Amino acid sequence: MEKLLTILTFVGAALALVFAAVKARKVIKFSPGTEKMRKISYAIREGANAYLKRQYKIVVIFFGIMFAVLGAMAIAGLLTPYVPFAFLTGGFFSALSGFVGMKIATISNTRTANACREGLNNGLKVAFSAGSVMGFTVVGLGLLDISLWFFILKFIFKLEPHEITSAMLTFGMGASSMALFARVGGGIFTKAADVGADLVGKVEAGIPEDDPRNPAVIADNVGDNVGDVAGMGADLYESYVGSIISACALGVAAFNNFNAMALPMLIAAIGVVCSIFGTFLVKTKEGATQKELLKSLSRGTNFSAIVIAIVSLPLVYFILGKENWTVYFAIFAGLISGVLIGQSTEYFTSDSYKPTKNLAATSETGTATIIIGGLSVGMLSTLLPIIIVAVCVLVSYFVSGGAHSSSMGLYGIALAAVGMLSTLGITLATDAYGPVADNAGGIAEMAGLDKSVRERTDALDSLGNTTAATGKGFAIGSAALTALALMASYIDKVNSIEGGAEKIANLNITNPTVLIGLFIGACLPFVFAALTMNSVGRAAQSVVKEVRRQFKEIKGLMEGKAEADYASCVDLCTKASLREMILPTVVAIAVPVAVGIVLGCSGVVGMLAGATASGFLMAVFMSNAGGAWDNAKKYIESGVHGGKGSSCHKSAVVGDTVGDPFKDTSGPAINILIKLLSMVSIVFAGLVVNFSIL
Amino acid sequence: MEKLLTILTFVGAALALVFAAVKARKVIKFSPGTEKMRKISYAIREGANAYLKRQYKIVVIFFGIMFAVLGAMAIAGLLTPYVPFAFLTGGFFSALSGFVGMKIATISNTRTANACREGLNNGLKVAFSAGSVMGFTVVGLGLLDISLWFFILKFIFKLEPHEITSAMLTFGMGASSMALFARVGGGIFTKAADVGADLVGKVEAGIPEDDPRNPAVIADNVGDNVGDVAGMGADLYESYVGSIISACALGVAAFNNFNAMALPMLIAAIGVVCSIFGTFLVKTKEGATQKELLKSLSRGTNFSAIVIAIVSLPLVYFILGKENWTVYFAIFAGLISGVLIGQSTEYFTSDSYKPTKNLAATSETGTATIIIGGLSVGMLSTLLPIIIVAVCVLVSYFVSGGAHSSSMGLYGIALAAVGMLSTLGITLATDAYGPVADNAGGIAEMAGLDKSVRERTDALDSLGNTTAATGKGFAIGSAALTALALMASYIDKVNSIEGGAEKIANLNITNPTVLIGLFIGACLPFVFAALTMNSVGRAAQSVVKEVRRQFKEIKGLMEGKAEADYASCVDLCTKASLREMILPTVVAIAVPVAVGIVLGCSGVVGMLAGATASGFLMAVFMSNAGGAWDNAKKYIESGVHGGKGSSCHKSAVVGDTVGDPFKDTSGPAINILIKLLSMVSIVFAGLVVNFSIL
Repeated sequence: MEKLLTILTFVGAALALVFAAVKARKVIKFSPGTEKMRKISYAIREGANAYLKRQYKIVVIFFGIMFAVLGAMAIAGLLTPYVPFAFLTGGFFSALSGFVGMKIATISNTRTANACREGLNNGLKVAFSAGSVMGFTVVGLGLLDISLWFFILKFIFKLEPHEITSAMLTFGMGASSMALFARVGGGIFTKAADVGADLVGKVEAGIPEDDPRNPAVIADNVGDNVGDVAGMGADLYESYVGSIISACALGVAAFNNFNAMALPMLIAAIGVVCSIFGTFLVKTKEGATQKELLKSLSRGTNFSAIVIAIVSLPLVYFILGKENWTVYFAIFAGLISGVLIGQSTEYFTSDSYKPTKNLAATSETGTATIIIGGLSVGMLSTLLPIIIVAVCVLVSYFVSGGAHSSSMGLYGIALAAVGMLSTLGITLATDAYGPVADNAGGIAEMAGLDKSVRERTDALDSLGNTTAATGKGFAIGSAALTALALMASYIDKVNSIEGGAEKIANLNITNPTVLIGLFIGACLPFVFAALTMNSVGRAAQSVVKEVRRQFKEIKGLMEGKAEADYASCVDLCTKASLREMILPTVVAIAVPVAVGIVLGCSGVVGMLAGATASGFLMAVFMSNAGGAWDNAKKYIESGVHGGKGSSCHKSAVVGDTVGDPFKDTSGPAINILIKLLSMVSIVFAGLVVNFSIL
Repeated sequence: MEKLLTILTFVGAALALVFAAVKARKVIKFSPGTEKMRKISYAIREGANAYLKRQYKIVVIFFGIMFAVLGAMAIAGLLTPYVPFAFLTGGFFSALSGFVGMKIATISNTRTANACREGLNNGLKVAFSAGSVMGFTVVGLGLLDISLWFFILKFIFKLEPHEITSAMLTFGMGASSMALFARVGGGIFTKAADVGADLVGKVEAGIPEDDPRNPAVIADNVGDNVGDVAGMGADLYESYVGSIISACALGVAAFNNFNAMALPMLIAAIGVVCSIFGTFLVKTKEGATQKELLKSLSRGTNFSAIVIAIVSLPLVYFILGKENWTVYFAIFAGLISGVLIGQSTEYFTSDSYKPTKNLAATSETGTATIIIGGLSVGMLSTLLPIIIVAVCVLVSYFVSGGAHSSSMGLYGIALAAVGMLSTLGITLATDAYGPVADNAGGIAEMAGLDKSVRERTDALDSLGNTTAATGKGFAIGSAALTALALMASYIDKVNSIEGGAEKIANLNITNPTVLIGLFIGACLPFVFAALTMNSVGRAAQSVVKEVRRQFKEIKGLMEGKAEADYASCVDLCTKASLREMILPTVVAIAVPVAVGIVLGCSGVVGMLAGATASGFLMAVFMSNAGGAWDNAKKYIESGVHGGKGSSCHKSAVVGDTVGDPFKDTSGPAINILIKLLSMVSIVFAGLVVNFSIL
């Protein structure tokens, strides 16, 4: 049985990676277009490579230090010796996911633009293939990492199940740390460039987006790749792996057998197969409308979700036994919740519905009212997702037997997260093609291609916004569920340490250490959002000044007679974002240890609960406010409230600019933060049990 | 002993009220100025009266319905028969506090303006006297309500201590409901008028603030009175009373004797005397500088705080016995924490320090960056207050013997809140004179008084902003501590109900009902902030349209030849704010009952903890972001970054406008929300225990 399982997950991983490779070969075969397009694409690729190279240098130093710290702790007996190595592989694979995604994205942007010269469907084909490469690389590498470690620990070192999961949780910390670097660094880069380019280009100089006269335009496109692609890849790698291993760990705690640990890995492996089948359904006839395109994408994701929902039932029955078959509904609840949160996101941020339409109307009375309006749309939009997650948690807990054994209930919550992410291969594919289309649009504009090409890339981009809403629903929902599961894993971990049980005996919410931990934890997402927004603000200001300088000093630039110095803006963003990404990451790692040392293990649990609740709310608030502003602006650009160039449009542009760091830097980073906090707490649990003050 | 105590609190109440009456007589004796000033003041007073009259009509209906509901529950045996009546008196005295404050404020605004014609110190004298009337009315009525009920329940109905506190907690719910109506209604009124007036007057038409040509200018001044004065009066009445009665209730729970219950009432009574002495120290020599004025105010508040800190020590020793004298440090921790939170508020929002200076600098790169900057200043500013409250909670818990008995520890937390608010009489006086000075400035402008008068009122107003920061620190800090104390009271209450103990046995934070309650509770402040901001937005938009209409249709208005139709704007604001205040209040009352019915008592405790944590953070975030924007704008007006009229200034005005509902509507209302949730939970505990699903 153990061997069969290892083979199955290896097969899942291999299938995903082979599929990704096949898709990648397909993409490369497309023509990269005219020489000018190739030149622009080359500049973007160079910029992105240069950024990643420098980012990885810093990351290597960080991982070196952490490896030494963990190594020292392992030598001191506070950790098992596998931990430092597991930490490294988690970081490595997470970085690799981002790297592969970015490679394929920078190859396919110009190819998508070129394909759009022939037609919308050709463009979709290239962009979606690129997205698939990304999606299946993430799940493939995730499964590979999990199955590799499982194989080593189980068959080479012959460890017990709880020792295996304990070590595997550590590569979650590696993956989370890397993801945070990638998300924060990339997020700051992309938004500093975007905000900087918009503020001077669109608002002050009045030139269109992606205009080649704007010196920050290449940096903006580089940013899409290092932020929206490499950042997202590392992020979702971490979500995927985190949800699976926390479910494995809780399965061992609940059933103390191998089968409960195997279930999440098997669901993930089967999810890969379902997702691959799903991608074959994504095709459209020539001349398809926007709506038909969307339908074609949904057909793929819905098919995968339905198949996994059907297949999981006998799987659970077979693996956990007939007395536990109701655990199936936890997986099912997770699947449904992901979809529902996505729909709620779409409702609040799409201009087909009232909230964004009303938001656009507030621009009639000026900039202040559209800012107030967007903030309140974002805040109000937290209600539905909270209720969905609440119901999902309750259902998964009780169908898994939580009424009899809380550890079985917690296993159910973790499985809900696994269920939600089981079709990640295809949902990520439909999500990741958005930035590719965005980039393609930039290249079309800069290369001076026919207007119809830009229209087609815009259509793809706008479609991407809708699928991105669903993607975000999955990312945020799974983050909350995974964070809760990790909190439970933390408690298990502490209980398994000598002297730990008494330290964590009183988790009553009125225990002042729990309560204070809760307050501090709830505060962290606020502080984290502030730090990352400040970083974007600072970095954007330096871009603004540089663009203004070039407009003033480079003669003939505005007339199109001289070329802008694109590289200096790329360089500025690179330096600024790498400098700015360090503090937030250090905070995320230092705080759980500090809280543990001062308040003890019960304080840490309080902190994790507080951070999960407020982090979930802040992430939804910031993402949705940003999305609503973005689409309110696009809605106005479609011709209402005076259309492009009107005073309403100017107000909406300010709203969109405020929303940029909200939705693309701080919001997504908070998702990672709440999981990293748990991962760090788990790894340092031994230290805290032995040395805490309270 | 019991009789002595009753007499002492009655004496405290009487002293406060007599002192307020004496001060009021003094204020009335000052001359109200020229006929034009009197006319303007009359218009403001009329508007404010009309608003309050209509507000009270709605409030009476609400209280009637609630009285019927509570009466029915009392008849059904779910409540004691005193509850409906206690509920009414709480509401009545809270409303009365607001009413008296507003009366004196609308009488003294023109008198302050007139006194400023003679000199700055004369102006300060009138304004501070008006503030004192407000401050001492609030504490006087609060103590009166408490001592009256204590007298009735103890000596007429001869109830046991725990029955007394149980009934007295209910008038907290009456006071909280009233406070929420006043804060939300008044907050929407004042900000709708302010935002509306600014958006069209300052931003579009380019006329100065308080210009008589602006049709919303009277409404703006009415708003200061109904929002910043009547709203604040009801709000702080509720804080004051809530902290005292929750401490009484926890004292009974912890010590099961009368003395522990008496202590908070005695501290409050002594606080009144100390505050009165403090006010005598507030005087300055002619020609005092701004700094000297501030010093004179601080001398008064510091003196009162030091005296109460000294006197409390023997008091605690005498009342609780020498084995419990360390409880004193809880009171002391509360006093210190209030001051520290105030200082942190000042650091983040005053233009003497880096955060606001840096924020002003972000206006150099446009409106979007100052918005992003302000949001992140607000979010970052949550860290210090959280740490201060955390330390205060830990200290008060452990010095009060929390390590041995958690109910003694919780009593300590409640006493910290009482300590923090013990000098409310004088802190509120230094806080409440701000809106009076603000109004005086408006009258000076509209009546065309000499420029030097406006300069003096501006100096007073700006001084008021600094003292308001301290006031806010007390309000927010005490709200968090009181909410925690009320959460503890709720648990006691449930335990005292038949069948309640088992319903609340598992308050472990990993219990899914607690966890889900936590998520829902944490979401409430976001939803509440969204609702109130939307209300302001909607109301402001109608004001904007009306002002634009008048500018267009009333010929000669801009040239000063025709008069604006002020009454229509006042009427608009009145209707809009009263319509908008209902939903948030109903939400705040319905949600705890609904959560209780679905999730049971443990879910309610989770909800209260979540709402307190996230509410505290949101209140600090929103208040400080708003304060920072406000002062960044004033800093720019002082001449930096291009000064008044520059593009930086325009951006800063947008920031200030966004900050208006943040700091004056949503932020303060959240303070009340978190306490009202607990109060409602306590009152409906019997219902929930008997009828909850989970």
